[in-house]
Amino acid sequence: MAPGPAAARTSDMKKFINQPDDVVLESLTGFAEAHARLVALNLNPLYLRRRTPKRKGVAVISGGGSGHEPLDVGFVGTGMLDAACPGAVFTAPTPGQIVAAAQDVARDAGVVLIVKNYAGDLKAFELARDMLDLPVRWVLVDDDVSGVDGIHPAGRRGVAGTVIVEKIVGAAAERGMTLDECKRVGDKANQATATMGVALTACQVPGAAATFAIGADEIELGVGLHGEPGRTRARAMPADDLVAALLGPISADLQLAGGQGVLLLVNGLGGTPLSELYLLLAATRAALDRKGLEVRRTAVGNFATALDTAGASLTLCVLDDELQSLWDAPVKTAVWRW
Amino acid sequence: MAPGPAAARTSDMKKFINQPDDVVLESLTGFAEAHARLVALNLNPLYLRRRTPKRKGVAVISGGGSGHEPLDVGFVGTGMLDAACPGAVFTAPTPGQIVAAAQDVARDAGVVLIVKNYAGDLKAFELARDMLDLPVRWVLVDDDVSGVDGIHPAGRRGVAGTVIVEKIVGAAAERGMTLDECKRVGDKANQATATMGVALTACQVPGAAATFAIGADEIELGVGLHGEPGRTRARAMPADDLVAALLGPISADLQLAGGQGVLLLVNGLGGTPLSELYLLLAATRAALDRKGLEVRRTAVGNFATALDTAGASLTLCVLDDELQSLWDAPVKTAVWRW
Repeated sequence: MAPGPAAARTSDMKKFINQPDDVVLESLTGFAEAHARLVALNLNPLYLRRRTPKRKGVAVISGGGSGHEPLDVGFVGTGMLDAACPGAVFTAPTPGQIVAAAQDVARDAGVVLIVKNYAGDLKAFELARDMLDLPVRWVLVDDDVSGVDGIHPAGRRGVAGTVIVEKIVGAAAERGMTLDECKRVGDKANQATATMGVALTACQVPGAAATFAIGADEIELGVGLHGEPGRTRARAMPADDLVAALLGPISADLQLAGGQGVLLLVNGLGGTPLSELYLLLAATRAALDRKGLEVRRTAVGNFATALDTAGASLTLCVLDDELQSLWDAPVKTAVWRW
Repeated sequence: MAPGPAAARTSDMKKFINQPDDVVLESLTGFAEAHARLVALNLNPLYLRRRTPKRKGVAVISGGGSGHEPLDVGFVGTGMLDAACPGAVFTAPTPGQIVAAAQDVARDAGVVLIVKNYAGDLKAFELARDMLDLPVRWVLVDDDVSGVDGIHPAGRRGVAGTVIVEKIVGAAAERGMTLDECKRVGDKANQATATMGVALTACQVPGAAATFAIGADEIELGVGLHGEPGRTRARAMPADDLVAALLGPISADLQLAGGQGVLLLVNGLGGTPLSELYLLLAATRAALDRKGLEVRRTAVGNFATALDTAGASLTLCVLDDELQSLWDAPVKTAVWRW
């Protein structure tokens, strides 16, 4: 069985793709076909919206580079996003995508843009905001507490906590809260949320080389969602020790104290099996129990990924009654339904 | 950050685990905690059952080696399994686990055991059946059409199509169909279903070496769910060509003809990101369209995995009205909710 003439792979990259340039469109096409009752794909410019748009109330839009699936497209649907704007792999969307999506789904009540804190995303969303003739508010997500702010000019990155902010703001909009109220709860959710990630492998952007080299017994602590190096290279360690290492910066950032109730999100980076994520959940929950924290809600899965990176992140969100109620509110998307 | 004294990893295996012997129990503990409203874990012997058992009607139980998560535990819940019995990694459960689970969840109407066609599973379920003082029927799943029957003494393996059979039989039981009717639709679903898999990498059982060696530009066609070698080693190829290679044996086995309606399941083997699975869905759907087949239902995700194998399988199930209706019936499990 010889490779076809269009074989696009280099010898160090095996992926289920055709041509690297076609990856995003072909994958989104499959996504839209698989979830045709929930979503519709607009091709030019590229964005994904709910199949049946809202008739009134605040619209919620996010977007960012592809390669993080199911983020953001998997969270379009009732109770979460109205539309998502995917860029090329690890590349911000264009302002034109965001403007077109907003003009399609937003109503008089205006639109909240949920923006992950990266220079490229900020610039695209800022330009789009200035072009829109609509009431616009902005929720910036910067939940990463790995301490790599000094390396990234925009500061703390938006990572897996993005899905929590999208859930909270989406639920607020679905409830009929005003534009300013939706922004308020989004900012509150972001403030209450902290994430720390670890990678066992790098990843490979289609058509490019691996993002970094890592030894067979090494792990990279403090990674984000782009296969970029993190803060600390360490030797592989048991899951219980790793959980302690990840919880340290999270606990410090959120100033966690016994008696608080939290949402615990265990996120896979794309190449780690569910069984290991559930093991991490059990280990994290046991560690939080010992600190006197009450794990009130959990979510486990590959939500915000970095292509095929083997790795995971832990996210905690300190819940008050309002955030917990918005988290619990009904949702119907490709990923979450409750 | 030095590794803890209990560091269990060998230099060629990085996983989120503590001790290899504790992987299954720790992972299931996390699963049961994350889905505590749906399921309950019994520790000795080990099985997972619905939180609220059925009061009447046929019970449906499956089980098999661990390392295939979310199979089978992720499919315990209303409209699918009543209980699942996980063995050690890639090892059949004991008859004692199956007997205890059946005695816990089965009622007078009896129990259907859904058994994947492997020698170890067959033996365990046969022994359990003989020990049970209940009406028992048996649905064997052997959907693999890779042609490796000659290598495996039991014949065709049960692979990703298992989740379809579990959905169909579970829906039949939930509807109140009799034990014999549940068996009939299960056998029919298995007959109508064929699967073909491909791996880009091998996998590593915790504490053991990689299951096979594979080159940087090679793929393994016809793999199952245990990281075992498949039927053909090929060079990496574009997704469209790969889809054609996988559909060939499926089409031959099911004697597909234009005008038929099918369910298409794209299954990841654990280490492949969702974005690539959706790309495979789009490519497969386009190929089936060209053959005049109607893709009526789709499911995309990591359902039946082989630890952290990068790979995927395509499954087709030819739908008649009865199978389609049972597929569409409501389900509420950790993985599927509709």
